[in-house]
Amino acid sequence: MSDPAATDPAIFRIGLLGHGTVGASVDDLVGARSGRIAEITGFQPVISGILTRSRGNVDDVIDGADLVVEVMGGLEPAYDYVVRAIRAGKHVVTANKQLLGVHGEELWALAREHAVQLRFEAAVAGGVPVIRVLQESLVGDHIDRVHGIVNGTTNFILSQMAATGAPYAQALAEAQRLGYAEADPSDDVNGKDAAAKMAILARLAFNTPVSLEDVRYEGIEHLTADDMSYADELGLSLKLIGTAERFEAGLSVRVHPAFLYAGHPLAAIDGPFNAVTIESQAITEITLSGPGAGGPQTASAVLGDIISAMIPPASTPEVTDNLAILDDVESAFYLHLEVADRPGVLAQIAEILGLQGASIKSVVQKGLGDNARLVMVVHPILESRLFAAVDLIGALTFIRSAPRAIRVIEEQF
Amino acid sequence: MSDPAATDPAIFRIGLLGHGTVGASVDDLVGARSGRIAEITGFQPVISGILTRSRGNVDDVIDGADLVVEVMGGLEPAYDYVVRAIRAGKHVVTANKQLLGVHGEELWALAREHAVQLRFEAAVAGGVPVIRVLQESLVGDHIDRVHGIVNGTTNFILSQMAATGAPYAQALAEAQRLGYAEADPSDDVNGKDAAAKMAILARLAFNTPVSLEDVRYEGIEHLTADDMSYADELGLSLKLIGTAERFEAGLSVRVHPAFLYAGHPLAAIDGPFNAVTIESQAITEITLSGPGAGGPQTASAVLGDIISAMIPPASTPEVTDNLAILDDVESAFYLHLEVADRPGVLAQIAEILGLQGASIKSVVQKGLGDNARLVMVVHPILESRLFAAVDLIGALTFIRSAPRAIRVIEEQF
Repeated sequence: MSDPAATDPAIFRIGLLGHGTVGASVDDLVGARSGRIAEITGFQPVISGILTRSRGNVDDVIDGADLVVEVMGGLEPAYDYVVRAIRAGKHVVTANKQLLGVHGEELWALAREHAVQLRFEAAVAGGVPVIRVLQESLVGDHIDRVHGIVNGTTNFILSQMAATGAPYAQALAEAQRLGYAEADPSDDVNGKDAAAKMAILARLAFNTPVSLEDVRYEGIEHLTADDMSYADELGLSLKLIGTAERFEAGLSVRVHPAFLYAGHPLAAIDGPFNAVTIESQAITEITLSGPGAGGPQTASAVLGDIISAMIPPASTPEVTDNLAILDDVESAFYLHLEVADRPGVLAQIAEILGLQGASIKSVVQKGLGDNARLVMVVHPILESRLFAAVDLIGALTFIRSAPRAIRVIEEQF
Repeated sequence: MSDPAATDPAIFRIGLLGHGTVGASVDDLVGARSGRIAEITGFQPVISGILTRSRGNVDDVIDGADLVVEVMGGLEPAYDYVVRAIRAGKHVVTANKQLLGVHGEELWALAREHAVQLRFEAAVAGGVPVIRVLQESLVGDHIDRVHGIVNGTTNFILSQMAATGAPYAQALAEAQRLGYAEADPSDDVNGKDAAAKMAILARLAFNTPVSLEDVRYEGIEHLTADDMSYADELGLSLKLIGTAERFEAGLSVRVHPAFLYAGHPLAAIDGPFNAVTIESQAITEITLSGPGAGGPQTASAVLGDIISAMIPPASTPEVTDNLAILDDVESAFYLHLEVADRPGVLAQIAEILGLQGASIKSVVQKGLGDNARLVMVVHPILESRLFAAVDLIGALTFIRSAPRAIRVIEEQF
């Protein structure tokens, strides 16, 4: 009781190789969520060392860690450092698709040999948990096909071209201005980045070694505004699609622009997002989508991997938060009223809404012979107050049928 | 060497409580995938006992199993049997949302006490792996909001109403005819089924006990064709939405119809599908979608849980299949050609395509002064043959710019 160390959770040391956008976000997120992580795992995570171009020593960072997070990117020195970490018996979490697309088999075998974990959720589709779903949820399934939009830069450019009719060069410039494309966007726009990610997805979906050089890829540089307008005319979407597909004779993995029919789950994925559709006879088709890049998003995938490496995931959830359950919250509403068509009706309704604090965003009135239909949208208001107003309105003599109130979920971003 | 038992994998016994649509699919899928499961886990799965209304004895099924799959549905006797299985030290995999929505806390605690796993991916959104993603990928995250379309029956009915203008009763009848709604659809259309699923999702997202009675729910029975046409006019979608949301004061969990703005990830989910969107500051927003019901789909979720209960998921993938990597596959194509506008041009192009075995699905020709633009779609053909044709066409004297070929992904179902 007098020894605080007896009750403090043990320390779990995380060495960070790289401190760019993703590395800094991992650093922040581990700090912000350390209490929660200790609750789940019984271990207090700390960033025990950081290697950047200008500071830190790689041996010290590896030696001082229980787990090494590699977020440097590129093949070298990342490859060398990951090998060293595994040989030193450290778990590794990496966001490096190139490294795995080229050296995956060797590194996975090395990790097994040294009985450490090598996790890589962040290497494909940022915060979208497609790696875990393939490795765990669907590990027993017979997968037929994986389709992916796995490069957010190109998806943003194509969405821009489709939405504005802009030519490729102009949409690329806009992507660069907004930070969705790098100054040198070559590996994004020529399909190579997507190819590395598809190699990893194909590897997991088909239990077959697939390296970057097995993937044929084509980019989006040659697409024109004209192709886009043709797609629009036919109700098709033009996307950069990665495909990994099982045939009688074997496996095909490729990346190229493709027109998608309107109902395809990837057809509606616009902007700098990623999405992956997995098909098998048993599951039919499931789709995972979300931000494919971004510091916090990628760091969130790294964090999930760190926690899984710390302790095996539990099958039963613990109660740790115990939040109060609320009965009454704010919502925006649509109100649908049939009223007698006579003067003063709208004024009375508006007065009742106003007294309950409801503010009208829009209203449409349509005549229906002697009656009229009033459809209005009300800004977010505590539901109990809105329903109180609806009860009062329903009792008015000029109301011709029970008022209907339906919630509206509005855009937040 | 002479003893086959020395090399045969050990047996893993699965007891099946219930043999309806889902139970029969689990039976089939375990049989079909037993080789793969043995490869991953080192154990050969067998269905060691089956309990139905007319055959089997529950004690025998439980005693003779290493893991019990509960796919009976309903509260009793499922509750009693699951408790017995856990007390007997057996892992349990269940697809029963009602059971967990009412008795979840007690059963999870009992499973921890007896050091067995209690897995339930199939209880929410069928084959869509939202439980695992919440329990593992996002376990360390601070989730702000979960939105879900978690009842396929109501989503089908609303999609029908939106697409055809049919009134509610007619769309419901159509859903019943197609097998998407039961003869007594009460618990689907009144929102109760969705409420039980949202209780489970809220429980996992917010680490707070949430039972079915904490969830306020409203159904779709009162919605009219008129509400749908209003939604259509404004570019909104009307869906039955489950929401679990964190506020300063606590947690709100509710199910009700809601209008969604056009860009919302759930707005485009049509037909008998499920989808769940999870929001946090770190991940922004990820969406998982797919079939929310169906025997094989639900059985696939059960299978993923069975395998995870057999052995902890590996972080590194093994090579078990080693498929050949193919260089050349069939694709449908769009071809875009600028040609001199003179007689015989289309005939020559068609001849070259025909010689390579390419069959033209559609063609549009537009005049451009002295030139014309030919846009055609070609039925699936081996890519090497199509590209050979494109090379030949590109060399024709009347071609005015390099031909462009873009793949087309066509509807398969």
